[in-house]
Amino acid sequence: MCQLLGMNSNMPTDICFSFTGFKARGGVTDQHADGWGVAFFDGPSVRILHDPQPSCSSPLADLVCAHPILATNIIAHIRKATHGDIRLENTHPFQRELWGRQWVFAHNGTLVNFAPTLDGSFHPVGTTDSEQAFCWLMQSLQQTFGATPPGREALFAWLQRCTVELAAYGVINFLFSNGDELFAHSSTRLSYLIRRPPFVDARLIDDDVSLNFGSCSQPSTHSVVIATTPLTDNEPWVCMPAGTLWCFSGGRVWRSAVTQPGPLTACSANSGQCA
Amino acid sequence: MCQLLGMNSNMPTDICFSFTGFKARGGVTDQHADGWGVAFFDGPSVRILHDPQPSCSSPLADLVCAHPILATNIIAHIRKATHGDIRLENTHPFQRELWGRQWVFAHNGTLVNFAPTLDGSFHPVGTTDSEQAFCWLMQSLQQTFGATPPGREALFAWLQRCTVELAAYGVINFLFSNGDELFAHSSTRLSYLIRRPPFVDARLIDDDVSLNFGSCSQPSTHSVVIATTPLTDNEPWVCMPAGTLWCFSGGRVWRSAVTQPGPLTACSANSGQCA
Repeated sequence: MCQLLGMNSNMPTDICFSFTGFKARGGVTDQHADGWGVAFFDGPSVRILHDPQPSCSSPLADLVCAHPILATNIIAHIRKATHGDIRLENTHPFQRELWGRQWVFAHNGTLVNFAPTLDGSFHPVGTTDSEQAFCWLMQSLQQTFGATPPGREALFAWLQRCTVELAAYGVINFLFSNGDELFAHSSTRLSYLIRRPPFVDARLIDDDVSLNFGSCSQPSTHSVVIATTPLTDNEPWVCMPAGTLWCFSGGRVWRSAVTQPGPLTACSANSGQCA
Repeated sequence: MCQLLGMNSNMPTDICFSFTGFKARGGVTDQHADGWGVAFFDGPSVRILHDPQPSCSSPLADLVCAHPILATNIIAHIRKATHGDIRLENTHPFQRELWGRQWVFAHNGTLVNFAPTLDGSFHPVGTTDSEQAFCWLMQSLQQTFGATPPGREALFAWLQRCTVELAAYGVINFLFSNGDELFAHSSTRLSYLIRRPPFVDARLIDDDVSLNFGSCSQPSTHSVVIATTPLTDNEPWVCMPAGTLWCFSGGRVWRSAVTQPGPLTACSANSGQCA
């Protein structure tokens, strides 16, 4: 399995603090040492840094912690390989262009016997089930909307339908974005935190680092941080129940919807622990 | 205008030395300070680092100089903006996936009144003539060969035809690769150097740095370095005449062909100066 980290904000924000704790899970405080990557959206474009080496010992990952790269949407991933060798092409996040926008996807989980028919518009470069799912999503996006990019409402409804289909094959926690909004699906485990004034001292679980965001953020900053498991031990993380799809926009929850039948899995909001 | 730097090698090789001189041209020894980028191929995949900031003052560019990233094909670019604002989406190299391979393109020059009909398979994210030319190339590649990727021979012949068409619109020095070979077109100015044993002390023009590659290379290493203008002042750079397309493979010239009518522009090989 792997771990996910996402950020959506109402103004360009860096991820130095959160990534410092996250990257420690790539070989120090946890075992997700089979590569890492992070995508920073800058308008319609994106820059992706990734490396098949462990994040805990990567000079590029150190740079992400030390030099603020500002973005309103960020998707990061540390990998524990299940499907596919430890190689650059199997390292998340994955990226494709459609309608002159970059689309980015990172996945935690395993899909079993997922072998969609792909028409060649979007073809996997590597051998992961994750990139295959992403290519299928992109193909569906193009086939569903043709030459006209959908608005947020239609995009969310489409993604909800696709996620229900994908979830039939296994575990599919994911983050997905085209730079406007950040979509997140909790298949088994995902939490989010809204960081806004008044800011408190945030204390990392995976490293001996604390930060008061009031010292480095605009008073009007609203950021959502999403992670497989909470990164700090003294902030009000909200568990996203298994089988829920979320859309974050401008540093706030825009919408959520269920993706599996039956009652939602209970989870203890504000506790930092998923049920 | 901009400057190009490429590398093709028979074994994974870093570009720390050459990039040290190249990045100085992004704001110190020359004026190409409107962004930079570098693509490192790793098998069928690629990692691209890019930044709309000047390379001479970029922490990410410093990392490229300090931490060897090995690849058999590398494409780098520093930008002096002509078409398109200074933004991430206008920063070369550009990247698209086709047939499960990543394809990368960087351009030096300006195309005038180039407005191809694009069917949406590959759409520019930014506003440069360069990305438009790249999308047109990728569309042509897909339309020409359908579902079957061409071999090197057919790929070279196709690229020669396309380059002749593009050259009718202006200056199109470019580097292009899918990770197997490195294609280079000299429209006005481009030089290459083959670095192989016995290695000499190589001395950068743009920085006070020398290196004997014998101290850090395998005896069987064969590398081609391609640059808009030579990076060292004591190695046998070869000028690529205006109107020639080249394919480099395994650190050697595989083939070259003309892309414009009439006699080739004279150039003084081995002198480090183009005519």
